[in-house]
Amino acid sequence: MSGDTRTSTSERLLDRRKRLLGPAYRLFFDQPLHLVRGDGVWLYDEDDRPYLDVYNNVAHVGHCHPHVVDALRKQAETLNTHTRYLHETAVEYAARLMEEFPDELDVCMYCCTGSEANELAVRIARAYAGGEGVIVTEHAYHGNTGTLSQLSTTHTYVQRGPEVQTCTAPNSFGGPYRSGDAHLGRKYTAFVEDALRELRTHGIQPAAIFLDTFFSTDGILTAPPDYFHRVVELVRNSGGLFIADEVQSGFGRTGDHMWGFQRYDIVPDIVTLGKPMGNGHPLAAVIVKRHIVERFAEHARYFNTFGGNPVSCAVGMAVLDVMERENLQQNAFVVGGYLKEELGKLQSKHELIGDIRGHGLFIGVELVLNRETLEPASGEAAAIVNDLRNRGVLIGTTGPDENVLKLRPPMVFNRENARQLVDALDAALMEV
Amino acid sequence: MSGDTRTSTSERLLDRRKRLLGPAYRLFFDQPLHLVRGDGVWLYDEDDRPYLDVYNNVAHVGHCHPHVVDALRKQAETLNTHTRYLHETAVEYAARLMEEFPDELDVCMYCCTGSEANELAVRIARAYAGGEGVIVTEHAYHGNTGTLSQLSTTHTYVQRGPEVQTCTAPNSFGGPYRSGDAHLGRKYTAFVEDALRELRTHGIQPAAIFLDTFFSTDGILTAPPDYFHRVVELVRNSGGLFIADEVQSGFGRTGDHMWGFQRYDIVPDIVTLGKPMGNGHPLAAVIVKRHIVERFAEHARYFNTFGGNPVSCAVGMAVLDVMERENLQQNAFVVGGYLKEELGKLQSKHELIGDIRGHGLFIGVELVLNRETLEPASGEAAAIVNDLRNRGVLIGTTGPDENVLKLRPPMVFNRENARQLVDALDAALMEV
Repeated sequence: MSGDTRTSTSERLLDRRKRLLGPAYRLFFDQPLHLVRGDGVWLYDEDDRPYLDVYNNVAHVGHCHPHVVDALRKQAETLNTHTRYLHETAVEYAARLMEEFPDELDVCMYCCTGSEANELAVRIARAYAGGEGVIVTEHAYHGNTGTLSQLSTTHTYVQRGPEVQTCTAPNSFGGPYRSGDAHLGRKYTAFVEDALRELRTHGIQPAAIFLDTFFSTDGILTAPPDYFHRVVELVRNSGGLFIADEVQSGFGRTGDHMWGFQRYDIVPDIVTLGKPMGNGHPLAAVIVKRHIVERFAEHARYFNTFGGNPVSCAVGMAVLDVMERENLQQNAFVVGGYLKEELGKLQSKHELIGDIRGHGLFIGVELVLNRETLEPASGEAAAIVNDLRNRGVLIGTTGPDENVLKLRPPMVFNRENARQLVDALDAALMEV
Repeated sequence: MSGDTRTSTSERLLDRRKRLLGPAYRLFFDQPLHLVRGDGVWLYDEDDRPYLDVYNNVAHVGHCHPHVVDALRKQAETLNTHTRYLHETAVEYAARLMEEFPDELDVCMYCCTGSEANELAVRIARAYAGGEGVIVTEHAYHGNTGTLSQLSTTHTYVQRGPEVQTCTAPNSFGGPYRSGDAHLGRKYTAFVEDALRELRTHGIQPAAIFLDTFFSTDGILTAPPDYFHRVVELVRNSGGLFIADEVQSGFGRTGDHMWGFQRYDIVPDIVTLGKPMGNGHPLAAVIVKRHIVERFAEHARYFNTFGGNPVSCAVGMAVLDVMERENLQQNAFVVGGYLKEELGKLQSKHELIGDIRGHGLFIGVELVLNRETLEPASGEAAAIVNDLRNRGVLIGTTGPDENVLKLRPPMVFNRENARQLVDALDAALMEV
C-alpha cells in the first residue's frame, strides 16, 4: 500500500471515528496509530510495521497469549452464565487468587472493570464506616463513574463536595519534602492529618483513604518506608479504612512482590484489582476482609451480571497459569532491574533526565528543564513520546505535569526489548 | 454419580463459595443449580440434566452460539487493545449499531456493563442540564454503583437525597389508575409533574427522567400510548432529558421493534444498552444525540480501558449477524405471540393468574390470590419458580411484590420450547 493510500485510509477511519464515537474520545500520539494485530510485546500497524509495546499493562502476559485465548475459547464454547447459579470456576479462581493475599483478606467479589471494583470498594467502606469522607492524593485517578470522577483529582473540571479531601502524595523528588530529610514519612503523613481535620470540621465521618500504592498518576512514586503505616493507623483511628487500588501495580508488576502494598509490609482493608487481571478481557475484583463486607451485607446485596461469569474466571485463571509457568514476576524483577540500570546510564548523559523511579516493569523517568529548579519538561516529554512512536516504540507520560515518561510494558518484556527501548530513548533524547 | 455424592459435591462447592465470595452474594432457587454447560435455550447441570432456559436474556442469541464464540476467538487471537489507538472494529460496530437508531441518536460510546452505561448517561445528562435531579419509578433498577444504587429504588435500604425523586409507574392492572380509565396517560403523567415540583421545591434542576421502557422491575408494564410523549415533553420543558434504559428491553426482544422506546414512537435523548449486547461478553454502550454529548465534552473526556476494545466489538457485531441471519426479532414476535396466547388459555383455567403482560419474548404473568382485591400471590410465585426448576424449566419473578413470573428466554426460543414451558407451568399451577 502506498503512503498516500495509507494516509487516506487512516484518515477516513479517523473521520468516521470522530463522527460515530463523538467528541469525548481521545487518541494517543500526534499521528494516531492504527493497529491491526498484537503478539507478545509487539503491536503491528496496517502496514505490518512492528511497535515495541512499552505502555500497555492490560496485555499483562503479552498480547494474544495463546494459553489465555484458549481458555477464553474453551469456556465460551461450554458455558457463560452468572453468579446466581453455582459454578466451579468462580469458586476455584477466587480460591487461587486468595492464595496470593494475606490471610485477613479473605473474601473475593467479582466485577468487570477497575471502575466497578473501586465503586464497590467505596460503597463497602462507606457502609462500614457509616460516613462519606474519602481521602485521595492530589493527582489521583480511580475511575470513570460519577463517584469515582469525584475521587479522581486528575479530573480538575469536576466539582467536589467536602466529603472528598486530598493529601499531597509522598514525592521525595519534587514534592515539598525531599530525599535526605530524615522525617519524610512523618511530614507527608501530616497532609493526611490535615485532610482528616478538614473532614471533622465539616462533620463528615471518614470512610477511607484510597491510595494507588504505586502513585501511578501522581508520577510513579515510592513512599518513605514508614508512610503507609503512619497514614493507615491515623485513618483507622478515625474509623476509616485503607483501600489499596492495585489496578495498576498488581499482579507482580513491581517484580519484588505480587501487590504494591506488600512493598510496605502492610495489610489493606480492601484491595481493588483490574486492568491486567484478564489480559484484556474485562475482569476486576474487590478483595476484602470478611468482617468489613459483613457490615455491608447486613443491608445490601451485590450482583453484577457479567462479574464472575465462568468465561471471565477461566481467563483470569489462565493469566495466573502463564505468570507461574513463565515466571513473569521474576522476569519483571530481573529485566526491570536491568532497564533501570541502563536508564541510569542515560541519565548521566542527558541533562533532561531528572529522576528515575519505580520497580520491576513499572518505571517513571521524570524529565526536567533544570536539575536545580526541577522545572517540568512537559513539552519535551510529549515530543519524545511522539518521536519514539515514529521509531517503533510505544510509551506514555504521567504525573501532574505529564513530564514523567511512563514505562509499563507487558510482563514478557525481555532484556533485548529493554535494550531496544533504551537505545531508542537515547536517540530521541538527542533529537529533542 | 450417585445422588448422595452429587449432593455432597454441590454442598462442598456451596460451602466454599460462601466462604470465598462472602455474604453479599445470593443464589437462585431453594436448591441452588450447579451448571456446567449451555447450548441454545438449554442449560445442563452436573448430571447433564437439561434445563429449558426461560430466564436469561444475556445469552441473547442462545448459549454458546458458535458464530459468536468464533468471532470472540478470532479477534482475541489477533488483537485486543483500547480506544486510544485507531481500530476498524470499534468504528464498524458503531456504524452498524447506529443503523438501528433514529438519525438524531448519532453518537456511540462504549462501556463494559449496563451499570457503566447508566453511570455515563447520568453524568452526560447532569452535565447537559447543569443540575442533579433525576426521576425514576418507584421500583426501578438501573445498576450497582453508588449513584445507580440511589437511582435503583428496588434497593430500599439506600438513603436518597432530594435529587432523586420517584414517580408511580403506569401500572394499569394494579396501580392507582386502571384499564378502562379514559385518561390513564394524563393521570400517570401527573406523578412525574409531582416529582418535578418536588425538585423545584428543593431548588434542584432536573437532569433527566430515567426509564426502563419495559418497566421490567416495576412488574413488566405497557404504558398508555400517550404516556411517554406527555412525560418526556414535561421533563424537556423543565430542561431535563429522557434517558431510555434499554438494557433489558433492547435488541429486538419485544418482537415488534428493535428497542422498547420505538413502541411509543418517541426518540430518547440518551439510550443505554447492556446485557444482551455481547451474548454474555461484558459489552454495553451509551447512544446519545451529538449536541448533548458535546456539552459534556466541553470539560470532560471519556475513557474506559476495556470499553470498545476490538474483541468486545467483534462479539457485538457477531450478535447482530446472528440476529439477522436467524431472523430472531421476527422469531420473538411469532413465538412470543403464541406463548402469550397459550398463557391466556392457562389464565381461564387457573384463578391465580391475574394478568398476562409484555410483548415478544419478554412476558410477565402476575399471580394474585384474588382477582378482585389483586392481593399478590408472592409465596405462590416463589413456589412455582422452585417447582419449575425441579421440572427442568428456569424462570424468575419480578415486580414490587415479586408476584410476577418473569419469562425472558434467549431469542432462539421456539414454539416447542414455549409448549414445554406452558405445560410445565400448567402442572406447577395445579400443585401450588
